[in-house]
Amino acid sequence: VPPPYEFDIATAMTRVDEGRFAGEIHDGWDIMGNANGGYLMALAASALREIAGRPDPVTVTAHYLAPAPAGRIEVRGETIKSGKRFATTTGSLVAVDGERELMRVVAAFGDLASTADGYSRMDGMPPDLPPFDDSPSRRRAGGGATGGTSDGAPALMDRLDVRLRPGDLGFAEGMKTGSPSIAGWFGFADRRPVDTLALLLVADAFPPPVFNIEMPPGWVPTVELTVHVRGVPAPGPLACRFATRFIQGGYLEEDGEVWDSSGRLVAMSRQLALVPRT
Amino acid sequence: VPPPYEFDIATAMTRVDEGRFAGEIHDGWDIMGNANGGYLMALAASALREIAGRPDPVTVTAHYLAPAPAGRIEVRGETIKSGKRFATTTGSLVAVDGERELMRVVAAFGDLASTADGYSRMDGMPPDLPPFDDSPSRRRAGGGATGGTSDGAPALMDRLDVRLRPGDLGFAEGMKTGSPSIAGWFGFADRRPVDTLALLLVADAFPPPVFNIEMPPGWVPTVELTVHVRGVPAPGPLACRFATRFIQGGYLEEDGEVWDSSGRLVAMSRQLALVPRT
Repeated sequence: VPPPYEFDIATAMTRVDEGRFAGEIHDGWDIMGNANGGYLMALAASALREIAGRPDPVTVTAHYLAPAPAGRIEVRGETIKSGKRFATTTGSLVAVDGERELMRVVAAFGDLASTADGYSRMDGMPPDLPPFDDSPSRRRAGGGATGGTSDGAPALMDRLDVRLRPGDLGFAEGMKTGSPSIAGWFGFADRRPVDTLALLLVADAFPPPVFNIEMPPGWVPTVELTVHVRGVPAPGPLACRFATRFIQGGYLEEDGEVWDSSGRLVAMSRQLALVPRT
Repeated sequence: VPPPYEFDIATAMTRVDEGRFAGEIHDGWDIMGNANGGYLMALAASALREIAGRPDPVTVTAHYLAPAPAGRIEVRGETIKSGKRFATTTGSLVAVDGERELMRVVAAFGDLASTADGYSRMDGMPPDLPPFDDSPSRRRAGGGATGGTSDGAPALMDRLDVRLRPGDLGFAEGMKTGSPSIAGWFGFADRRPVDTLALLLVADAFPPPVFNIEMPPGWVPTVELTVHVRGVPAPGPLACRFATRFIQGGYLEEDGEVWDSSGRLVAMSRQLALVPRT
């Protein structure tokens, strides 16, 4: 599939004024009609990156304020500080119809490719996954070399090529693993390369790991998501791991790691989410 | 020691206008003249909490923009959204002399005590520590039941009563443990109870865990810190654990867990920090 890629169309923003960008929450990047949180973060970062004038979102935090159906939006942002290493920005993602703020973001942009590697020490590894080509895709429509599955995956999964670790999709088949952990491969369905902007989507593109335990069912709304982009991904699918350790007092955290095909950590994420009320 | 406690004095903010609070970065909450990042977060949250009108900072993110010497500051903030469960706010901490923004914060406030416990599952435990009373304090001036130590601790440590796990202070004595992990107790020197505001300080009150590995020496400046407050602490000292897993490309993350005396997780933290340049 040649460019333009779906993700680029879905995150395109047009500058309409100083610090004001117009765009759209596109259909098909949602879970049951509510746009995916990582997609919304990427949409806002797409505009803030223009404001920052630096290529990579290094650390991005979003607070989710309201459900986000498809429709026209604006991102209204500004540079807080433009320094040597970072341009730090903030912005609102606003639904134009009704002037309703959906998300507030603070993000520092920099140039990850220009940073010298220096001292390195890694206490962790990519998840152990079968080869990408041998893994079933969550795409509903099928297609791709290995065919698709029909596991009740949301519309978002048609845009992506997410391939879960064997067994981790158990929740969709009535066979929860009992462990709040999900791992698998991430790619785009149209083979768009994953750049640092797309890593923001990756950080929220997997099913909640708690779907694999006997927690009361229901959606797990994100209150806040922070993504640290730790490197520019090498070409190829990304190996991802998401896990929840602490569910208490109505809240849970979800931690993510994203590794590229060269075995390099390219993103870490953490979100605070709400436990479904019983 | 009777109230007013040092932390309350050091985080006192006076409302001067709609969304504008005056205060001071107090001396003695610093590391080598630069105010501690957790203290700065608590200072801003002290004002934003007034704006929010809710007792507990549930998730707070700070971007650190410039070094913060002692002096007069203002916090200028606003409510982004006041909802049923959260009041989401944002604010700037500005040094009055020179009108220099030092930190930008986004924070959601709520009422943690009012939340029903519901489903709970914990994959983790407090760190294994000797009893608080048997542990040496990092207070430079000595005092307290078990006496003090003189380990080159920064001024901040005189306000606190931080007691590290045996061996974890090795870095200060030329005996690094080789593991980027530090655990220990947190209390205030004047026995102020630790509330949810003070947990923001706790999240940044320990030495960087990387001091215990053979990384090139130097300060480890925080770019961004996010704290999730997961519960209202029970009385007594807090058991804390900080660790760094991934040092790569000039960046590292530091993750923290804070547990209260009843064995309940009360805060999780993650920060993105810079590796000292060689």
